[in-house]
Amino acid sequence: MICEHASNRVPASLDALGLSEAELRSHIAWDPGAAELAGLMSRRLDAPLIKARFSRLVFDCNRSPRADSAILARSDGTVIPGNQRLTAAARAARARSIYHPFRARTAEVLSSRRHRGGTAVLITVHSFTPIYGRERRAFDLGVLHDSDTRLADQILRVAAMDRHLEALRNAPYGPDDGVTHTLVTHAIPNGLLNAMLEVRSDLISEPAGRVAMAERLSGYVSCALEALSQKSSQSSVAGI
Amino acid sequence: MICEHASNRVPASLDALGLSEAELRSHIAWDPGAAELAGLMSRRLDAPLIKARFSRLVFDCNRSPRADSAILARSDGTVIPGNQRLTAAARAARARSIYHPFRARTAEVLSSRRHRGGTAVLITVHSFTPIYGRERRAFDLGVLHDSDTRLADQILRVAAMDRHLEALRNAPYGPDDGVTHTLVTHAIPNGLLNAMLEVRSDLISEPAGRVAMAERLSGYVSCALEALSQKSSQSSVAGI
Repeated sequence: MICEHASNRVPASLDALGLSEAELRSHIAWDPGAAELAGLMSRRLDAPLIKARFSRLVFDCNRSPRADSAILARSDGTVIPGNQRLTAAARAARARSIYHPFRARTAEVLSSRRHRGGTAVLITVHSFTPIYGRERRAFDLGVLHDSDTRLADQILRVAAMDRHLEALRNAPYGPDDGVTHTLVTHAIPNGLLNAMLEVRSDLISEPAGRVAMAERLSGYVSCALEALSQKSSQSSVAGI
Repeated sequence: MICEHASNRVPASLDALGLSEAELRSHIAWDPGAAELAGLMSRRLDAPLIKARFSRLVFDCNRSPRADSAILARSDGTVIPGNQRLTAAARAARARSIYHPFRARTAEVLSSRRHRGGTAVLITVHSFTPIYGRERRAFDLGVLHDSDTRLADQILRVAAMDRHLEALRNAPYGPDDGVTHTLVTHAIPNGLLNAMLEVRSDLISEPAGRVAMAERLSGYVSCALEALSQKSSQSSVAGI
């Protein structure tokens, strides 16, 4: 389980990127509630959790280091003073100290899970802001995927049985926005089941809501994985 | 969804059955937390909820009116003064005013669900006390059934994937204790999928814990029903 936008910390050397405390508490700096939600889900599902240690504004660990969006100069209308006119060397230094260790740690954990046997599954946990710019987002959950739709399809099927939660596929973002970077980097090359979950942040702003959502989503994931394991045992039988 | 032990109310005419307020708040009078848990699950699963209006000590709506245990003279070591040496007429009067209306209402709701089409499912929701007499009960959930094990089997299968909750079959009671009365009366004669859920009451004593447990159990039930619907569609295919 991965939470790339877990933290709103900025290394002291970067002087808060020139942002106010309020700006650093807002969704531009991190995914509020996502780290706690991911923590609860990781315990419930017995999955190790890897969290980024610094704000996405320092370096977004869910973006290719070649993408401009890895270090945003502006986010949801706010200019990020500390990210203006960065030299290539400054960008590379942030990638070296933040992005590459995050990738290495993720690869290491997945590799150790595969060596223990069983199926490794990669799920990334995010929150999205209910209002982005002028857009109001009323749905509750986005289930995102790239070219491998297996797990996302099953999670969406399970979510569709839950009439009190509206789940959408590849919303509020999709693979064309570059948000499936972790999935594409770690899961798809290794054939791992994978999905990205985006929860509307106001649903997980309070501890009770987070615990409830963690139970709900963990139930979706368990049920989805069970359906996939039954499918694969059926197809093995068919293949004999 | 049924909650036979939802209430600890005693009709004023019975003068609190001679019990103290503390006794009426304890598990002997009702299943603490069960009504709220059942309420949350009923909303989550879009199932109507039928709750008994009075304490089980007045009349236990989950017992045959022919059973002595329908009106207990003593429960978990406590003598119930108002239930001593009741005449047959007094017992019949309580059955008439409490038990029979409860059965009639349950039958009516199930019948209206069946007429709307689709599969009606009957689940009863209870809580059990962590310490009964000298017995300490460490498990979290009991999934109880009578002769029709279909839904209970699937719920137990789903619960087994959840390593942080210990679920047992037919515990802390079982059909030989008479606790499947509602299932036997309403579900089995009509071929309805059915199960009884018993949650350890300390897990649902606080609102946040109840919400989390409601999500968890609702997820189990949804996943179990989905597996059963897939099974039945497979067997239909096989039967062609």
